[in-house]
Formats: sequence, C-alpha cells, structure tokens
Amino acid sequence: MSDPMTDLGRRALLPAGLRDVLPPNAENEARLIEVMVARTATHGYERVKPPLIEFETSLLEGPGAALSSRVFRLMDPMSQRMMGVRADMTAQVARIASTRLKNVPRPLRLCYAGEVLHTTAEQVSPEREMVQVGAELIGSHTAAADAEIILVGIEALRAAGIERLSLDLMVPPLVPAVLAGLDLPAAEAARLRAAIDRKDTAAVEELGGKVAPVLTRLLAATGPKDNALAALAGIDLPEEARAALDRLTEVADLVAAAAPGLAITLDPVENRGFEYHTGIAFSLFVRGVRAEVGRGGRYRPNGDPNETATGFTLYMEKVLQALPAPKRREAVFVPHGAPREAAAALRAEGRVTVQGLEPVADVVAEARRQRCAAVWQDGKVIALGKAGASEDKA
Amino acid sequence: MSDPMTDLGRRALLPAGLRDVLPPNAENEARLIEVMVARTATHGYERVKPPLIEFETSLLEGPGAALSSRVFRLMDPMSQRMMGVRADMTAQVARIASTRLKNVPRPLRLCYAGEVLHTTAEQVSPEREMVQVGAELIGSHTAAADAEIILVGIEALRAAGIERLSLDLMVPPLVPAVLAGLDLPAAEAARLRAAIDRKDTAAVEELGGKVAPVLTRLLAATGPKDNALAALAGIDLPEEARAALDRLTEVADLVAAAAPGLAITLDPVENRGFEYHTGIAFSLFVRGVRAEVGRGGRYRPNGDPNETATGFTLYMEKVLQALPAPKRREAVFVPHGAPREAAAALRAEGRVTVQGLEPVADVVAEARRQRCAAVWQDGKVIALGKAGASEDKA
Repeated sequence: MSDPMTDLGRRALLPAGLRDVLPPNAENEARLIEVMVARTATHGYERVKPPLIEFETSLLEGPGAALSSRVFRLMDPMSQRMMGVRADMTAQVARIASTRLKNVPRPLRLCYAGEVLHTTAEQVSPEREMVQVGAELIGSHTAAADAEIILVGIEALRAAGIERLSLDLMVPPLVPAVLAGLDLPAAEAARLRAAIDRKDTAAVEELGGKVAPVLTRLLAATGPKDNALAALAGIDLPEEARAALDRLTEVADLVAAAAPGLAITLDPVENRGFEYHTGIAFSLFVRGVRAEVGRGGRYRPNGDPNETATGFTLYMEKVLQALPAPKRREAVFVPHGAPREAAAALRAEGRVTVQGLEPVADVVAEARRQRCAAVWQDGKVIALGKAGASEDKA
Repeated sequence: MSDPMTDLGRRALLPAGLRDVLPPNAENEARLIEVMVARTATHGYERVKPPLIEFETSLLEGPGAALSSRVFRLMDPMSQRMMGVRADMTAQVARIASTRLKNVPRPLRLCYAGEVLHTTAEQVSPEREMVQVGAELIGSHTAAADAEIILVGIEALRAAGIERLSLDLMVPPLVPAVLAGLDLPAAEAARLRAAIDRKDTAAVEELGGKVAPVLTRLLAATGPKDNALAALAGIDLPEEARAALDRLTEVADLVAAAAPGLAITLDPVENRGFEYHTGIAFSLFVRGVRAEVGRGGRYRPNGDPNETATGFTLYMEKVLQALPAPKRREAVFVPHGAPREAAAALRAEGRVTVQGLEPVADVVAEARRQRCAAVWQDGKVIALGKAGASEDKA
C-alpha cells in the first residue's frame, strides 16, 4: 500500500492549463453554453457536433491551418494515420458544410458548442482546454451576412448576461490591397507590414513610398466608429481596397442601426490574428474587464474559392470571467424514512432534495451538516436560518 | 490548386468510429444530455467538469485502471509527462471527490456529462467517441445509497423519454467470497471462475469441491427477481458471502418498492465487466432494442480503503438509439427589408426565424428554397403547405 498522503498530493495535480470545474461553476457553465447556443439557434442556426479528433489532414485545412502548432497529434491504431485533437471548431464546421451538407441550399446556418484543446497556453490566457460556442453563416457574400453574424454573436452574449460589450471592426484584406500596387521586394514589404502592425507612423511614412499618404490616413482612422468613418471619407484607394473599405462602412452602419447602444470602434489596418480572414473581421470585448469574449469574420471555408462564409467564436472561459460567480442551489434535506412522494413533490416544484440515507438522532443538525438550506418535516419544509429553523414561505 | 473533387472525398472521411452529428440530431442530443443531468441534479447531485485530458497516472488509478488499453496517450509539451485522454469519467470524478472536495461532508453527490474517447471500438458498439452522463454518490455504505443511484439513473433515463427499462442486479464480490474458503491453486481457481462465468453447471460441479452445491444453487438463481430470491433463500453461505447476498436482496426490494413497474432480474454470479466493483452492480437495458443504456455499482474510489462510492454511467449514444429520431425545427422566413422588430417578436414567441439577406423576386419560393415552413409577410406569418400558402394559426 503506497502512502495515501503522497497519492493524494499527486492526484490533485493536473497538468498546467487544465482544471476541474467544481460546483456550482460546472452547472452554471453548462447552462450558459446552452443559453448561448439556444439564442443562436433561434436565428435559424442548426446545431452540429463534429468529433473531438479527426485526421490531421482535414483538421488543418483552410481556417484550421493557422493552428497547426497548437494541435495535439495522436496515432490512430485502426488506420495507422495521424489524427489531431481539435484546437478550434471552425474548420470542422466548414468541413461539414462542404461535405455532408454540400447539397443543402445556401445560405447555410450552423452552430455548435464544444471543447477544444491546445498543446500550449497563449500568453493572454493560461487555459489549454477551452469551450467554444460558435456559429457559421455559409454561402452569402452580403454585408447583411457580415452584420448578422456580429449581431447574433452579441445577442448570444447578452442572453448569457454579458453587458457593456464593445465591438472592434476590422477588414484584414484592406492593407494587402493597398500594398498590391507597390511591387515591393519581399523583405521590404515585410518591414512595411510590420510597421503598419505596430502602428508606427514614422516608419510607414519612410517605407510606404507612393502609398505612404494613404497608409498614414488609414492608420489615423482607428477609433470610435463615427470619428473613424469621418477620417476615412474621401481617401483615394485602388478598386479592391475601396470595396473593402466600403464594406467596412456598410457593416458598421448596419450593426450600429440594429444595436444602438453598442460601442463600435474601427481598426482598418489591423491584421494580426486575422490572417485567414478574407473580409470583415471583428473582436468582441467586455468593457471594464478588457476580456476578448469572442471574435470572428469572413473566410474561405476549406480554401474553396467558390464558397464564402462568416462566423463567430465565443470564448466561454472569458464569458464566465466577465460574469458574477454563480450561487450554489439550495437543497431541502428529506430525512430517512420520509415518504418518497414527499421528496418527489418537492422536486416537481423545482426544488432540489437531498435524501437521508440512514436514521439520525437530530435531523436539523444532519441537514445542516449536509449543507442543506431547509429540511422536510411532517409534510412541511422548514428553512434553516443561521440562528435556528423557521417554516419556509415558498 | 489541387483537385477539388479529390479534396472533397478526402475531407469527408473521418476515422472509423468517429462521426459528425448533424441537424437535427446534435440539438436533440445536447437537449437530452441536459435533461438527464438536470433530473439527476434535482436529487442533490452537484455538477462537476473534469478536463478531457490529464496525467496518465491519475487517469488510470482506481476505477480507471481497467481502461488502460483504451486510453489515447499524449505527451505534454509543458511538463514532458504522459497524459491520457479520458476513456471514462468515473475515475476523474472520484479523483475530484478525494482531492478538491475531500473536506466536503459525506455523503457527497456529484454528477457530470462529457465526451470520452477510446483507442479502439468495442465489439458491441463501433463508436470511439461517446458521451457519458453519470452520477457518483460517495461516502455512504448503505443499501439506501445503492438503491438511490439505481433509481436516480432510471429517473434520468425516463426523463429523456426512455421507457421499457429493465434492471439487471449483480453482486460481483459474492462468488469470490464463496471461493475464499476453498484455498484452490491459482490455475484451478481460474478454471472454476471461468466455468462460473460461462454458467457451465457441469464444470462447476466437477471443479467446485465442497462449495459446488452452493455454486450450482447460485447459478440456478438467475432470472426475474421474485423467482431468483426464492431460489436464493436458505442457501448456507460463509459470513461475507451471506452479507453480499443479503445486500442484493435488500437493494432489489428497495428498488422494486420505489419503481413498481420495473422489470428486475438478478444475476448473483455475474462478474464480467464489473471486476472493479466491491458491492452491488447493475446494468440498465431497454427491452425490445436490447441496448445497454447504462450501468454502475459500488466501488472503492481511487483504491482508498476508507472511502466507498456507488455511481451510474448512462451511455448517450445508446439512449439516442432507443428513442425516435428527432424532427427538424420549423423556421419562419423573414424577407430582406422586413422590420427587425418583426423577426424579434417571432423569436420572443419561441419561433425560429431565418433572415433573408438580399432582396428576391418571389419571397415564398425563396422561403421554400431555404427550407422554411412559413414566411413573414406584411405583419403575418403565412404557413407554407405543400400545395400553397395559408395564414398560420399559431
């Protein structure tokens, strides 16, 4: 027999970034996941559930490629092929849309919730197992689709109790479209791109050549929607960049009209973390806690040039951090020997019952010991106040 | 650019035993999981959520040891230690009870729902990813605890719509307690154990020595509860075996009293698949479809001799197989340009809306194309029958 204290110590230790969710948090998390998915589903998003693991080749296609270094690999003993544990669900849902559901009329609306695993933690968040709640709107190029995904994501977060949201709108293809005309050598283009990413106006002026004036104006047009749109008005842009900027304006206006209280900022040159997006992209923040609770945008599902999609992913761990801690549900202790029907009737009323499993001398003390807030006695529910018992009013 | 048809074919292929759950099945599954957990929670079982992966050493302790060959192993790049993907959640919940919740008063009631992965499929079921819904009642030795776990499991299944349940009750320590007095050489004991397992009365008579008469009577006492109890009455047993059999009788009577319509069979010598159980064990079947929808029993959490627990695990895939296929939720098509408030009002009534993202010439045709059952027009919801549209009564 090994030393129980040592065993206990060892057992308590989970790998970094992994954790047990305890009562009452686990129930609260599960409830909020379902609330968010249910709200999304009312907009016609039908739920899918891809597997936790699949072949590496399919997991890392299209929107999944960026996460390759985050994916745990497993050898499949049945096929002898490499599988990966999903690090994100967007690529899986895109795969479902383009295979199992390829003959379903577009636009196709899908939603999902599930766990993802990362090999290593990110700087901004220590977790390696996370819950994603998301939706994908596949097959519509419209600005209305861009706006719908943002608005449904916001509605799902609000249904979970998240207030004080702010929306950052981006359009990752804009800068590449501006730079396309420059014909810069690769190293110089990379230096310019880096200068734009760190919003270094001086370096952009130095490296930007003939598009430096446009780039500095785009850089300056970061901030609250109305100010940013004013700063962007009248910039002379090549056709593709103009279309990208017009789309940004249109989506910002659609979202603002539908969500009047929402804080919207534009960040027309932002690109980092949104490299696979082919149109409008966005982040959702909770003001005050500064947590990014969700993000999303337009992309090409599985690299198929004939299909387009936009989607959102909400980060459950961040959502929970932005909400107050849940309270434990109060239970009624039902002593050993009480009629089964009595406890069943309490449960039918929506109460939680804790059944006494053996006779005890002091039922009230036993109820308290078992962390119950009330006790059933002779057909009545007696609430257990801190200084004694009193008949429950409910 | 690679051949899109080849890509498509490859993408569609998931590893054997893994699958995409599509609409409307994924929503139905998620809903039923929550129904089953919620019903369990009304009996005071508080939800926990262990991680999908943890160190192999803790995952394979106690009740987890039996599943070692089913566990996918992963190297943790952060600790350089081996981790496993859970193949069962009982051991994880037992770990939580004995570590994070070790100071919570007993009996401790916990419940959970989550996915598990197996390296290889079982003969009886091809899935390698499965959802378990379960509960553990930790720290009570009573027959009332054995009965409660069985009854709560049955109630959870019934809440999900499962009818026609049958319960098989077993007591795995009984045969070892009978054999303990024999002092047989290991090889002979194994042959006897195998004969009992295959219910080979002739071989048991030949190999059973002085306990052969008792063993054959136990073998004969398999079947419907009342017949089996009559056959077991008056068997002369050593003390430990007598206690095991008395417990079986007591639990069978408690369950029968609380669940009058339930088909209960006893199988006092059954052991296979219940090797880690230290007391009453059970299987729940759906009559007609012959699927084992759940099982459980008493065990020693993490091998701790001072703690006892009993629990159930319900198998979501089997539950779903025993239920009728779900219907797709019907949606109302809301044409492009309709006031946002109109669609919001429909959703507030509990309807699903599908928003038109661009103007169309024929709204009814578009609603049908998008698989909607009704269409919003000028403030009214028009149901789309097969042969035309009519105003919706709801």
